[in-house]
Amino acid sequence: MNLIESLQWRYATKKMNGEKVPQDKLNRILEATRLAPSSYGLTPYHVIVVEDQELKEKLQGACYGQTQLVDSSAVLVFATWDDITEDSVNIYTQEIARQREIPVDTLSMLDGMIKGMLSNMTQEQKVTWAQKQAYIGLGFALAAAAVEEVDSTPMEGFVPAQVDEVLNLGELGLKSVVVLPLGYRDSENDYLANSKKVRWEDSKFFVRK
Amino acid sequence: MNLIESLQWRYATKKMNGEKVPQDKLNRILEATRLAPSSYGLTPYHVIVVEDQELKEKLQGACYGQTQLVDSSAVLVFATWDDITEDSVNIYTQEIARQREIPVDTLSMLDGMIKGMLSNMTQEQKVTWAQKQAYIGLGFALAAAAVEEVDSTPMEGFVPAQVDEVLNLGELGLKSVVVLPLGYRDSENDYLANSKKVRWEDSKFFVRK
Repeated sequence: MNLIESLQWRYATKKMNGEKVPQDKLNRILEATRLAPSSYGLTPYHVIVVEDQELKEKLQGACYGQTQLVDSSAVLVFATWDDITEDSVNIYTQEIARQREIPVDTLSMLDGMIKGMLSNMTQEQKVTWAQKQAYIGLGFALAAAAVEEVDSTPMEGFVPAQVDEVLNLGELGLKSVVVLPLGYRDSENDYLANSKKVRWEDSKFFVRK
Repeated sequence: MNLIESLQWRYATKKMNGEKVPQDKLNRILEATRLAPSSYGLTPYHVIVVEDQELKEKLQGACYGQTQLVDSSAVLVFATWDDITEDSVNIYTQEIARQREIPVDTLSMLDGMIKGMLSNMTQEQKVTWAQKQAYIGLGFALAAAAVEEVDSTPMEGFVPAQVDEVLNLGELGLKSVVVLPLGYRDSENDYLANSKKVRWEDSKFFVRK
């Protein structure tokens, strides 16, 4: 399948069959997610990869009982940094310097731009901004899963505080934003498996100028 | 290139060379974007596709003079619906019924779920929610462009009110959220073209459970 065919093939799977996703496929989906861009490259979120079945069962309770949590092979939880501080930026510019093998001083302009942007944001704006970056990662994970012929279900329907508690995200300074079970569709028992995909038609979605 | 190689190849292009992206490539990038999922499939945003050079020049003024606006082949502007009303939901469920050739009454549960969710949101929460959906589309556009070996530059650095004015988005009930020029890198004049891509390493980005 080419990319368009893969994206047509995918859908928000409502019933999964419990089959395990091979490790190499999962790794490629994770690597695509890690490669997602973000504003200034700061990437103010982590991805929690849950394969432990007991933990998935607990997560199900925090996700209104949705069965994909337990019938999936792995659950990705995108979780943003609780607080984005000047220290976070310092750590980031030090990491760039380390990976590029350049002095950190040469990044003072970038450092100033990120800190300047953050200083103009309220805490609420920072949260929204970090969440949007995480959604780019979500997009990359969804596309990569489709390319690997792995099913997935992007979920906003969960109780964030409960997911955070199950995964001890508070201790890590993280807050859950969106949940993505990965696995395989149970076509016979999924009412959505054979429904026509609905999207706004070209003329209602694009405005050409 | 496979998907991972394509995603490694891409970067936020700082200098483009003015070359035109072939129509079939642009069409596939747009189709991938249109296929992006969203919460309940509502997709509360449009994508403005700007190819007109004069308009791109005006957009440059609204984007702090960034040269990719004029040196790109096309500029995508993701713009969310200004207001997400019960009417928007009615139009959506009618569209599902039409595309699936089913009576709209069979969608009353979905209709109730979307309206219930929206009625629990403040106007500000609706805006954030719509923006997050647009960022999934952005992720799909970025990945598809990379697969087509087309360069792109995701941009949050612009004055939304000015972009809205240049494109008359107010008349369409839309607000710009993120801007994505598409084109080709000018490797010789782009300081970032040959810089090592920096991402958090696996151990700093993933939490395994």
